[in-house]
Amino acid sequence: MENVDYEAVHDELFIMLEDHMIKELSLTLAEMNEFDISEFLGELWETDQTRMAMVFRLLSKEIAADVFANLEVEEQETIINSITDTELGDIIEDLSVDDAVDMMEELPANVVKRVMRTTDAETRALINKYLKYPENSAGSIMTAEYIDLKKYMSVREAIARIRRIGEDKETIYVCYVTSAKRHLEGVVTVKDLLLSDDDEILEDIMDTNVICARTTDDQEDVSEQFSDYDLLAIPVVDKEGCLVGIVTVDDVIDVMEQEATEDIEKMAGITPSDRPYSRTSAIEIWRNRIPWLMFLMLSATFTGMIMTHFEDALAAQVVLAAFIPMLMGTGGNSGSQASTAVIRSLSLGDVEPSDVLKVVWKELRVAFLCGVTLAVINFGKMYLVDRTLLGNAEVTLTVAAIVSLTIVFVVMFAKVVGSTLPIIAEKIGVDPAVMASPLISTITDAVSLMIYFNIARILIPSLR
Amino acid sequence: MENVDYEAVHDELFIMLEDHMIKELSLTLAEMNEFDISEFLGELWETDQTRMAMVFRLLSKEIAADVFANLEVEEQETIINSITDTELGDIIEDLSVDDAVDMMEELPANVVKRVMRTTDAETRALINKYLKYPENSAGSIMTAEYIDLKKYMSVREAIARIRRIGEDKETIYVCYVTSAKRHLEGVVTVKDLLLSDDDEILEDIMDTNVICARTTDDQEDVSEQFSDYDLLAIPVVDKEGCLVGIVTVDDVIDVMEQEATEDIEKMAGITPSDRPYSRTSAIEIWRNRIPWLMFLMLSATFTGMIMTHFEDALAAQVVLAAFIPMLMGTGGNSGSQASTAVIRSLSLGDVEPSDVLKVVWKELRVAFLCGVTLAVINFGKMYLVDRTLLGNAEVTLTVAAIVSLTIVFVVMFAKVVGSTLPIIAEKIGVDPAVMASPLISTITDAVSLMIYFNIARILIPSLR
Repeated sequence: MENVDYEAVHDELFIMLEDHMIKELSLTLAEMNEFDISEFLGELWETDQTRMAMVFRLLSKEIAADVFANLEVEEQETIINSITDTELGDIIEDLSVDDAVDMMEELPANVVKRVMRTTDAETRALINKYLKYPENSAGSIMTAEYIDLKKYMSVREAIARIRRIGEDKETIYVCYVTSAKRHLEGVVTVKDLLLSDDDEILEDIMDTNVICARTTDDQEDVSEQFSDYDLLAIPVVDKEGCLVGIVTVDDVIDVMEQEATEDIEKMAGITPSDRPYSRTSAIEIWRNRIPWLMFLMLSATFTGMIMTHFEDALAAQVVLAAFIPMLMGTGGNSGSQASTAVIRSLSLGDVEPSDVLKVVWKELRVAFLCGVTLAVINFGKMYLVDRTLLGNAEVTLTVAAIVSLTIVFVVMFAKVVGSTLPIIAEKIGVDPAVMASPLISTITDAVSLMIYFNIARILIPSLR
Repeated sequence: MENVDYEAVHDELFIMLEDHMIKELSLTLAEMNEFDISEFLGELWETDQTRMAMVFRLLSKEIAADVFANLEVEEQETIINSITDTELGDIIEDLSVDDAVDMMEELPANVVKRVMRTTDAETRALINKYLKYPENSAGSIMTAEYIDLKKYMSVREAIARIRRIGEDKETIYVCYVTSAKRHLEGVVTVKDLLLSDDDEILEDIMDTNVICARTTDDQEDVSEQFSDYDLLAIPVVDKEGCLVGIVTVDDVIDVMEQEATEDIEKMAGITPSDRPYSRTSAIEIWRNRIPWLMFLMLSATFTGMIMTHFEDALAAQVVLAAFIPMLMGTGGNSGSQASTAVIRSLSLGDVEPSDVLKVVWKELRVAFLCGVTLAVINFGKMYLVDRTLLGNAEVTLTVAAIVSLTIVFVVMFAKVVGSTLPIIAEKIGVDPAVMASPLISTITDAVSLMIYFNIARILIPSLR
């Protein structure tokens, strides 16, 4: 058993397409996995959209919807625009509600209108209901295709029901026991069922201590519960405690990737976008990046003002300017190490906002160790390399002392600010990731300069 | 049905412990979920390790191993050191192989020795075999507890076998069909079995197009396959194609969190560690952070040398110094935006190293847009605010032009370097995350200064 080389298969598919070997093409596609087909269609889309829609129509009805669900929204739009209303209706019917909702949220309004027109009343009502849940909530990622059981059923009856209605369910492995009024009463897995006697009653084997989510819960909290409790699916209940849907582990994996990407982007001062990088236009990337760049450029005015304020000192001792980039770089890096560690710990639930004092105390000790190490190395380097080896007479012992002392203070300041700002952000309900390196570097830059010039003024009396 | 407030439960548990209400304590614990018990033990460990071991011994044998598997390795060590050899043997016996191996990899050698002594020969051999797989490989995270079936079995026989041996398996929902020589021949899910007739033969319903991993595959690639193909488990085969274990989705979720954390840490210049931040000592954090800080501080020597080289220009036009922090900051931020976007796209498989030209072309356009926007705003700000409003006569139109022109070049340089370095790293087999912001900022800093001073020399003839 070996993994097939999909690059080779793709090349083969392209050749069949080139040579109009339609029959061979359909046969090869029929053997392939939905994910690989959608990857192939995605490649095709980039070069020839008409052809891509043509290939899609070669797919059998059984897998068309699964392939469709895996496509990017622009690719879905191409297909919607080139198939008949009946074909479209069939596909939407076969999609899971969560996939249909995902798509609707991103399609242009006129396309949504056509899609809604082709679907039957029941599906339309369901999609409309799901579209009302806030973005990134449990409600917006859940699906309605779950198996519900009753507590008075026997194991035999439950298995019979699963065999009867299981075909189109998102998962059959976790089943939910509900009351007549759809209140969630318990959960029972297929493993529980298979490992119990056929005559046992669900009420006796179901787990009543159910971990569940509310429709309004943030998707990040839902994914946290999956990783804590090793779940395959989580039931989602409304305000009245009625079961309205489930979220399955495959959707949660996508959520986790998306949330990690968003955190990483925010930490680098990029406005997160749902679209993958390769599909984002230069204009859109510019729009996502320019706000922070602009904000940070303008905040650097303060640094400039501090430099201007100390202009006389700088003119008298131009050698001091040579170490400014290093000091600001060291401050920025120290701060972003601290903020990154704290932001990640907050988002994994390892650190709580109430731990702020513990964190500051730890960072102070780390900063002291880092600061002293760097200061000693810097002093040695300035004295041995800059002064002795390179013969730069301006680098006096005093200058080396000023720079090294500044390092200690800058590192300590940067680490404390870097670790506390994200915690404060979390406390006041702002996303901690926004408080990351770029902002902290800007603050540290300004403060580093003030520390530097003030130490210089103290140690070089002529600068006062 | 409501989520229980575990903070309140924890407080209650602490009170029972304080008041020596041992019976009530065991009863409450018996009602709790393994994850919540292990969280409670973790809290207890931080204040009183003896008591924590005592509470652990109150747990029923059925859940002791599951709770144990959820603990941090230091907590596991505490327990190992306070229970008898027989108790220890029982727990190790009940652990999944992957959990046992995880623990062994981190325990001190003398503790490992004792653990190995208490387990029976078979388990010991299995653990030893797994310990030989490289760290972070599929082999190191797989487990041996899967269900194997034969292709000549009927659905009825398969279900009977699952009911008989399913109890201790990591998952029963995905079963593997193997030959007499343990070659993997196909995969069949419990859903396939339940939705087929009892008399059908596995050979006719199994999927022979199995997506599988090799023992030596990187765990990151394995988790990529889970998210691409929506898997619940993946079979792991050795060089001969024989099935040796499986990786389940709950382990993959942990891998994904761990890999995202590692990427984020590397991007901030931190040596990744397996231990959560709250459990890492100040000394260890220092050790993880100081190498990059030191390297980057020493690389900033180049920036310093460039400043020294242009010292005369700087002395003649001290006003130029005031804009250095802003230029370096803007360069650093532009570069880290590009590197972050590219690193994340590489790790999600959205961008391949072969896309390097596409990426550079896109970044060039984005950089041009960003650079021109920032330059225009900066020119306006310098002319209107610095010169007119603040009356800083040194900020001449020429100086404003020099700074604005530099911004365009610096942003373009930073974005190109920021996007290409990670791709080059990936190509030569270095982790792209290591090429992230700190390193790119340092390179950008040096180049920004050279661009700045050269433009200044061209536009201010007296500086030549």
